[in-house]
This record gives sequence, C-alpha cells and structure tokens, in this order.
Amino acid sequence: MYKVTFKFENGDDVEAFAASGENLLEVARKTNVAIDAPCSGNAACGKCRVQLVGGELESEKTVHITEEEYAQGWRLSCVSKVIADVEVLVPDIASAYKSRMKVADLDSAKEIEIFEKTKADIEAAGISFKNDLEVVRVTMAPPSLDDTMPDIERVTWAVEDACGVERVKIPFSVMKKMAETLRTYNFDVQCVIRRAENKVEVLDICAPDQEVKVCGLAVDIGTTSVAALVINMLDGSILAKASTGNGQIRYGADVINRIIESLKPGGKKKLQDAVVKETLNPLIMQMCKAARIKPGMIYRICVAGNTTMNHLLMGVDADPVRMEPYIPTFFETSCVHAQDLDIKTFPHARVIVAPNIGSYVGGDITAGTFASCIWNRPEMSLFIDLGTNGELVFGNEEFMMSCACSAGPAFEGGDISCGMRATDGAIEACVIDKETMEPTLSIIGDEGQKAVGVCGSGIIDLISELFRCGIINPKGKFIREGRRIRYDKYGMGSYVLVFKEDAASVKDVEINEVDIDNFMRAKGAIFSAIRVMLNSLDFTVDMIDDVYVAGGIGSGINMENAVNIGMFPDIDLEKFHYIGNSSLSGAYTMLLSSEAEAKVSEISHNMTYLELSNEPTYMDEFVACCFLPHTDATLFPSLTFK
Amino acid sequence: MYKVTFKFENGDDVEAFAASGENLLEVARKTNVAIDAPCSGNAACGKCRVQLVGGELESEKTVHITEEEYAQGWRLSCVSKVIADVEVLVPDIASAYKSRMKVADLDSAKEIEIFEKTKADIEAAGISFKNDLEVVRVTMAPPSLDDTMPDIERVTWAVEDACGVERVKIPFSVMKKMAETLRTYNFDVQCVIRRAENKVEVLDICAPDQEVKVCGLAVDIGTTSVAALVINMLDGSILAKASTGNGQIRYGADVINRIIESLKPGGKKKLQDAVVKETLNPLIMQMCKAARIKPGMIYRICVAGNTTMNHLLMGVDADPVRMEPYIPTFFETSCVHAQDLDIKTFPHARVIVAPNIGSYVGGDITAGTFASCIWNRPEMSLFIDLGTNGELVFGNEEFMMSCACSAGPAFEGGDISCGMRATDGAIEACVIDKETMEPTLSIIGDEGQKAVGVCGSGIIDLISELFRCGIINPKGKFIREGRRIRYDKYGMGSYVLVFKEDAASVKDVEINEVDIDNFMRAKGAIFSAIRVMLNSLDFTVDMIDDVYVAGGIGSGINMENAVNIGMFPDIDLEKFHYIGNSSLSGAYTMLLSSEAEAKVSEISHNMTYLELSNEPTYMDEFVACCFLPHTDATLFPSLTFK
Repeated sequence: MYKVTFKFENGDDVEAFAASGENLLEVARKTNVAIDAPCSGNAACGKCRVQLVGGELESEKTVHITEEEYAQGWRLSCVSKVIADVEVLVPDIASAYKSRMKVADLDSAKEIEIFEKTKADIEAAGISFKNDLEVVRVTMAPPSLDDTMPDIERVTWAVEDACGVERVKIPFSVMKKMAETLRTYNFDVQCVIRRAENKVEVLDICAPDQEVKVCGLAVDIGTTSVAALVINMLDGSILAKASTGNGQIRYGADVINRIIESLKPGGKKKLQDAVVKETLNPLIMQMCKAARIKPGMIYRICVAGNTTMNHLLMGVDADPVRMEPYIPTFFETSCVHAQDLDIKTFPHARVIVAPNIGSYVGGDITAGTFASCIWNRPEMSLFIDLGTNGELVFGNEEFMMSCACSAGPAFEGGDISCGMRATDGAIEACVIDKETMEPTLSIIGDEGQKAVGVCGSGIIDLISELFRCGIINPKGKFIREGRRIRYDKYGMGSYVLVFKEDAASVKDVEINEVDIDNFMRAKGAIFSAIRVMLNSLDFTVDMIDDVYVAGGIGSGINMENAVNIGMFPDIDLEKFHYIGNSSLSGAYTMLLSSEAEAKVSEISHNMTYLELSNEPTYMDEFVACCFLPHTDATLFPSLTFK
Repeated sequence: MYKVTFKFENGDDVEAFAASGENLLEVARKTNVAIDAPCSGNAACGKCRVQLVGGELESEKTVHITEEEYAQGWRLSCVSKVIADVEVLVPDIASAYKSRMKVADLDSAKEIEIFEKTKADIEAAGISFKNDLEVVRVTMAPPSLDDTMPDIERVTWAVEDACGVERVKIPFSVMKKMAETLRTYNFDVQCVIRRAENKVEVLDICAPDQEVKVCGLAVDIGTTSVAALVINMLDGSILAKASTGNGQIRYGADVINRIIESLKPGGKKKLQDAVVKETLNPLIMQMCKAARIKPGMIYRICVAGNTTMNHLLMGVDADPVRMEPYIPTFFETSCVHAQDLDIKTFPHARVIVAPNIGSYVGGDITAGTFASCIWNRPEMSLFIDLGTNGELVFGNEEFMMSCACSAGPAFEGGDISCGMRATDGAIEACVIDKETMEPTLSIIGDEGQKAVGVCGSGIIDLISELFRCGIINPKGKFIREGRRIRYDKYGMGSYVLVFKEDAASVKDVEINEVDIDNFMRAKGAIFSAIRVMLNSLDFTVDMIDDVYVAGGIGSGINMENAVNIGMFPDIDLEKFHYIGNSSLSGAYTMLLSSEAEAKVSEISHNMTYLELSNEPTYMDEFVACCFLPHTDATLFPSLTFK
C-alpha cells in the first residue's frame, strides 16, 4: 500500500492509501476527492489533470498534456497508476464541481428577487400560499388521581380541541418524547402539526415559550449542480440559499453513465450516498448554520429533479429509465419521508417530489413549468430549461407539450475544455474587439477575481463574438491569425481568453474547435427541438409570444447572442425572459403551498410528451442546426453578420 | 484490566475484561451474562452465587454461603470484586432465567390445545377470525412504447382491480424493489396486502410461483418470562412456540427496579435492548428456524404485556407509571411498527399492543380477560392472572372490574431461594407422606430429569403438604423434626425436597421459613384482593360462578392445594379452570382477528379499575390472609386439617 496525498489550492489535503498499480482516478473516487471526469475516465476529455508535486506516478502520455506540461508534472489522473507514495495537486478546475459549495449572501443575491417574483406571479394566478404546517399552543389540565387519562389521550383531546378536528395522529417519535416534555413544561406545550382535511398529525412537541421555527427545504437536484433553499414555512421567507456540485459527478457527467454505475453491485446505494450523504446533507448543514436553525426544524421537503435524479435519490432501480420502453418506477410518489433517504432533517419530514411525466421529462420540468406560469396565460409560450441536457415545454392555459433533447452538459460547462459551472471564477460574459481580437470579460466573484474557466452564458457570448468578428466561420473553424489564436500540429485552432499568468488556472483559459463543435451540437439540439415540436403542432416560431429561459447557464445570458449563434429563434428580443433556476423556484412554491403542490400534479397529468427520436424530421433538422447560425440563413433574418 | 471468564455447565464460556475492584455482578451485566439477582445485588436473596474455579476474587462472606460452601469456592457475585484474572462457574439456577430458551415441540405441547380451545370459545362468542392480511395475484400487461404508465401506477391500478378497492397505498419499501421484481417476473407477481375499509396497503411484492407465507407473531412480554407464537395468518395454524426469560431480569426482578434502572443515562435504550435485542429477536430467530420461515415473512405482531413492559419495550419514559398520579404515556397506540422498535421481522409490520387500562393493569390483563371469555357470559366470573404480581378481573357480560395486587414474583419462583420458572428441572407438583415426611415429586422435563428448583405450582403443593402433614404451623413455622428438616443457629427451619446428590443443582433443593413467609404474603395478597374487590361490589365469594386461573405458575396447579393454603376462595373445585398463559392466547387471537383486536379495545374502555390501596379494609384483610389458610378459618369450611 502506498500513501496518496491529494493537495488542494486552498490547502486542505486529503490522504488515502492505494495498492500498487491502482488507478489514480479510482483512488480519488473511493476517497471522495472530486476530480471532474466527464468522459468517465477514458482519457477523452482531458479534465482530470493533476500535477505531480512529490513521489512518483506511472502515467501514459496523451494529447491533452503537452511535453512542456508533462515536464511540469501535469498528468491525467485517469491514465495514472500509483507505484509509490505520491503527492498530487488537484487544481481548482478539476475539483470545481465539488469544492465550490456556496452559501449565498441573501442581502445581495439577485436570485432571491427571482424567487419572490415567481411567488408573486403564482399568487396572482390564484394559488394560495398556504401549506399544511402549523404551530399550536396546547394547554392541558395536569393529571391527578381523579383524572387518570394517559398522556397520548390527553394530548389528542387537547389538539382536537385546539385545531377543531376530529382525528389526531400521534406518531411514534412524538410518543417517545411525550411524557418527559409534558412533565417538564407542566402540560403546557407547543405542537408542530400537519393538517390534512379533517385530520391533524402531531409532528413535534416542544416547550411553550421557545420560538418554534417550522422550516422547509426546497431542493433542485440537477445532474451537475444541486441548489437549495431553507424557508420559514410560517411566513414564507427565505432563510438560506446554497448550491454545490452533485457528488454523483464522479460517476459520470450524464444520467446514462450514472445509471450504468448504479447497476454495479452496491451501485444504487453508492449513487444515493453520493447525492444524499456527500451533497445534500452537507448543504443542509451549511444552510442551517447560516439560518441559525437546527436541521430537525425542517419539517417539509420538496425536491425537483429529472427522472433519473429522482430515482437515484430514492435508491430505486433506474435502469428501466434508460432501456426501452423507458418506464420509470414512479412519476409521482407520496410515501417518502426524510428518514427513508437518510436526509438529515426532521426524520419524518414528508418529501414531496415534483412529478415526472416520463423518463426524460422530470420533476425539474414540471416544477419549472409551474414557476414560469405559462399554464395560466392565453399567450403561446415556450419554456426552455438549459440544464444538463435541454427540455422544452410549449403551450398555454389550454394545452402543453414537452420534449427533451440530448444537448449534453455543455450549458453547464461540461464537454468544454475550459467550461465550468456559473460560480466564482467563471467568465459569464464577453465582448471581443473585431480589430484587435482582444476580449473584455465579466467574471463571477468579488472584485479582482481571476478567471478559472467559462460558464454557459460566457460560451454563448464567446462563440457569438468569435463568429461576429470573423475569427471562426459558420462551421466553427478558426480562420484568422493573431496573438490569441493558435493552431496545433493537426491544424486545430483555439482562442485564448486569458493567458495563464492572468488566470486563476493552471493553464491558459482557451476554447478550441472541439469545444466549439461540442457547443454547436448542444445549441443545435435545442433549436432543432424547438422547430420539430412547433412543426408537430403546426406552429412556426413567429407564433411564439414569450420565451422563458431557465437553467444554471448563468443569469447573464445574452439573448441576442443566443439568437446570433442559432440557439434560440430569431424573434423580438423582448419576448425572451430569463427566469433563473425555475426547478428550484418551482420547488420553493410547492414547498410553501399545498395548492401549488396539487397544481403541479395537475400540470404533469395534462402535459403531453413528444418523443423527438420518433419524429422523422428531427435528425435532418439537427444536422442543419450544427452551423452558425443555421444552414438555412433565412431563419435568422435579423442577423447582420451571418 | 483483568480477564474474567464465565463458565457454564453447558460448556459455553464467555470472556470479559474488568477493571481492578469492579463488582463481578456488574461485569456480568455489562457482558450480557445473565446471573439472576432478584434483590438487585444487595446480598439479600443469595441467588447470584457462582463458584470460583480459577484465579482470585475478593468476596465478603454472607449468610447465604456456608463455611463449607465458601471453602468449595462458592461466592455471591454481588459482593465479589475482581482483583486478578478469574474464572467462575455460573450454575444453571443462577442463569436459569436467561439460558433456558425453549422452542416447544408442537406435536406434544399441551399448551397448543389451550390456544385452540381459546380460539374456539372466542369464535363461539361470535368473533370472526379474519384479519387484514391477504395475498393477491396481480397480473399486468407489460409496458410498451404505447403504454408508458410508470410501475407504481400500473401496480396501483392492478391492485385496485384485484381487490375491488378505490385506494391503494404503496409504501417506500415496496417502491424500492418494484422495478426489479416486476421485470424479473414479467409483470406477474403476488402482493401481500393489508386491507382497511375501502383501502389497501401493499406490504410486499414477490414472485408469482413461490408459496407466500404470511405470518404473524404473538408475544406475551412478562416481567420474568417472554413467550411467543408464530402463526400462519392465512389459516390460523400455529407454526412455532417458544419461551425464554426476559433479558431485563438482570436489571431487577420487578417493574419498579427496572423503571429506576431506565432512568439512568442511556437506561431506556438499555432496557429496550434487553427485551428486544437480547430476548425477542433471538426468540424470533429460533421460532423462524423451527417454522422454516424467514423473519421478513412476519407481517403483523401483537404484543401483550403489563404497562411497564409495554413502555420499556417502546423505549418510552416509564417513570410516570411508578410516580403518583401513575399516568402512563399510553393505554392504546396504533402508530408503532417493528422497525421503530428494532424488532427483526418485516420492518413495517404493525405492532398491535393489547391496551393497558392503567399503570398497574396492562395489556396482558385485557388480552387475558378477552381470552377467558368472561365478557361474553351471564355468569359471574373471576379471572386471576398469576404472573409477577397478580391481577384480578371480576364481572360478566354486563360489567367488569379489575385490580392489581403486589404479590411479587413468588408465583414464578422469584423471592423463593429454590424457586424457578416452570421449565425443565422444575418441581411442579409434590405430595408428602404424613408419617415419613418423604416427598413424591413431579419434575418438568424428560424421563430422568433431575430437580433444579421448584416452580409456582410446586411451591403451592409443597406448602399445602407441609401444612397438612403438620410440619409447619399456620404461621408457616417448622414444628416437626426429621431427616429432611433442619434448623439453623437462629432456629429458622427448612425442609429438604431433594438432597444435593440427587439434584441437578449445586446445593440441596430446600425451602425455608423465609421462603414460606414470602409465599404466604404473595398468596395473601391474592386472597385479600379477591375479598376486597368483591366486597366493594357487595358480592361474596360464594356468588362466584367460575374462576379462571392464568399465568406461568405451571399447568399442574392443584386448585385444592391452592384453596388449602388460603390463596383461592373455598368454593366448589369444579368452578376452577386453568387457562394457561392467557396473555399469550389473547395476543394470539388479537393477532389473527381484527374483530378480536377491536373487542379487546372495547373491553379495555369498559373495564373499571379499583385501586386497592385506596380501600380502607385492604391492609387488615391482607394481614389476616398471611396465615394458613387465614386467621378467620370459617372462610375455609371444607378444610379438614386446618
């Protein structure tokens, strides 16, 4: 056994032991060191690079590491074997998915505004923001030799009286603490209750004078990122917001790879642990700290995620999701509680799962559709969720159709060599001077933050600007020369956004033709899906009244540039609205409102699903879309530089 | 640290480590070695004797160990300190409560007849033996691209159809295994269901062709002994029967000492573990082995026990049971499942708890009253449960009154130096020749079984015979001489039933005046309780039509002798009926029949409770009863030798 030390730029070292010949990426996975490997360790993506800073490694050379870099100690962990004690530096970009748990500063976070606007829109649509949780003060006569009713009956009667209901359920957890609580507070207590029709369940019993916080947790479980809110369930206020990478990322960047991992022995548990124990529970802990509450005060949970994420979260067999005829175990479920999933909140907190409508349109989309309010408007609206893959919903108050397209993880920075999530250090916007070809960048983070990589909105800007400036042609190939433009020995071009010395990165932040090609396929998937879905309904893009764009692509998404590259249809820019993480805002509203919960269920039942792969025109449309902006330029009449 | 080796007669050694000066009984408790110490380690009962066979012990001398015995290595563990590595032999009588788990041979066990008779009587009283468990075959069309209903909905619809109900609940545990089970058996499965009104819960889903065993577990949790049955829930047949000592015994022989132990830090968990993990789970395992089923096939559980046992089983604070105004947490509860208590059966098996009616009349009595059928007869009946303590119920189909008396553990062999449970080696009956004073004994066990001690029914016979033969006087003092009669230096007499050389014991099996005095107080508590309860209702003993005697006292109880010693009223012997472990037979019928479950609840609500200590005549009555047969001999007109 050899000692492997993973060193991080922030100084947190992690030590592990490995057998001789063990694969370094595997060692990292076992040790819960997150090294991003979207290609699942096939030496294809080049993202899992680490720097050898002590000891020895046996590593194959690959195209992803130059001779100079190799000499500096750079290695791909997926092709490295442990042959001695070794120390490796894991650069920020390699661990970016995991290491960047971020608790938002609520005073300045612009997302909060979006959540509040979503809530106001939904309230305006007639949904009441009332949920099933309440706190009631319950005062009883203490027992005596003449009044020998046992505690449970005493509490039951008092709660029936206080709540005006005929049935009260006392669960085992409350029964266990009842005797002591009642006697400590002389039969004068507060109860946290859940009300359902003419029935009440007592969730908790506590001191009469303490401020009882009844909180809820809304979670968006994305394939790449997980974001969550802690809410005061009594007044609806947001107490904390945080996001982090999905710990499952080390088992593959996309849902298919994760399902395959989950089929291995112990796999379901492994994938569930990665999202619950490694991702969600630490997130909850951090948020509770920020909100100054205890996790046990979270009594209701709403989760929105795609169908695979939902199944892996539950530890339920996800294989049928990927195999024809693509039938998941559940669309909706109402039987799950926090303790079933090892989520560290109040153990019997009900877990509301935003309903799936198929294997490839999940709860993130039903929740997001709800948040967009397109179900309440006469206008024809298009809802686009740019997550890992893209999903679309088109319709209005009378009908809605959905579809999913295989856009891959490019919008969240996956499949792009310099790509990253929209978090500190990400270039989220850029403008290029057509003459000098010098870029002007916006970087997420505090004043003086150096660039680490590029997030989705930044890539859209970058490709649009490279195209506008004539640096790349409609096929995405480089056609100009300059100090920021390089061609390798195979003639593949790239553009350097930030040179290494100015970056918070271990190499230049640059985009190459492979990256551009990957992104063009992603944007092509979106646009062709829009065209095919509208065609199937005998609609054309000019009949769209509004486009709601959601997703972790970055709040700075420049709609004009997205049209320029042929990702979105060429319609009036005022029709585009960025609505942030609609999966999370949908979960937030479902958490707070029982009517919202019911409405999302209704939406999911009424939404039809279009399987694009069954549409004969889809493949041709897709191929035609893998150009800038499109092989049929007449679809983009307003573009002046095409 | 020193090594302590506990050796057993059966050769199973247990090793432990102890600090210098640690109390040997404490070491045994920590190590889960059951050494019976009814006095809780106060050197008062003399039962915790062990034999030093190697190493050293520092032990005080006590009246319980003679000089000769001390020389042979006999020590009381409660007054022994570990001062070096040591080996001690734990004799069978010291560990009898624990070591004698016994799985009954169903073909020969006479108790089985009693259970079947009880069931027949209850059926004759109009109670249907139908419970909420069923197995249904559910066949579905497999999904296709044209039929994309998710698994949960597919099963829900099919079960609705198969069961003719409108609501189906699929719990999380079933959801987790659904995808794989459905696909393995091509959407043709069997479901174990629980039916409630117009609703069905799917408990389990399994192969279409396997013989699905739907089993249930009935348990009597006594303070001293635990007995249980495994039942086939579909046809009511008994698949296994077993009994063992309650592992809590090492924390005290009576409920008060156990409650006090449970108040110490971690105490509730310790007492719960002692009954669940050390007693019930091994019992379940043994019974499942005998019945050739898996514990996971036990889908419904019914527990009958006294109020303290119920509370300690649940891990619920039992202190209010012992403190005025004696208010337990619950009389009835319907929220408990096996997994809540760590009972190793089907995790979501509902635990039906026979309802308590007060702190000192528990579910064992409501279940037992049900089993006695006195609630269904016009005749005035007296139900007597002789467990650890005694409880009485008097009444008929129109009213019932109950009371509890502090009889102590004597009926189960506690508080008696040679006392033991009614298990192998127990003398269960005896006759003494008036001339020779030689006894003729019946010993429980196979042919040739030697005596270990005396169980409750044997003690009744013994005292009655000693009295009849004029060996003891009405005060229980020895008044004759003979080879079996001894007097110690204080003049205390004793009678040797079996000399050491003929016994499977480490010393003579003998009964002394202290034992007789303890037993007279126990029988006095019973008789005075009968008198006071009947008086309070303006009844006299001659108005009793039937007496039903239940409890672990031994099936051989000789009613005539029980009358002779003044324990039971002097009425026609044909009116007495021994009904065995009525707590267990009540639990058995509640397990099998939902109507029985409801009826016991009704009985518990209608039964009144008489607190004897509030009755001004009770103490005088009790004192008058501590004679053979009674200070008022006119109460026993049929006795010829008084």
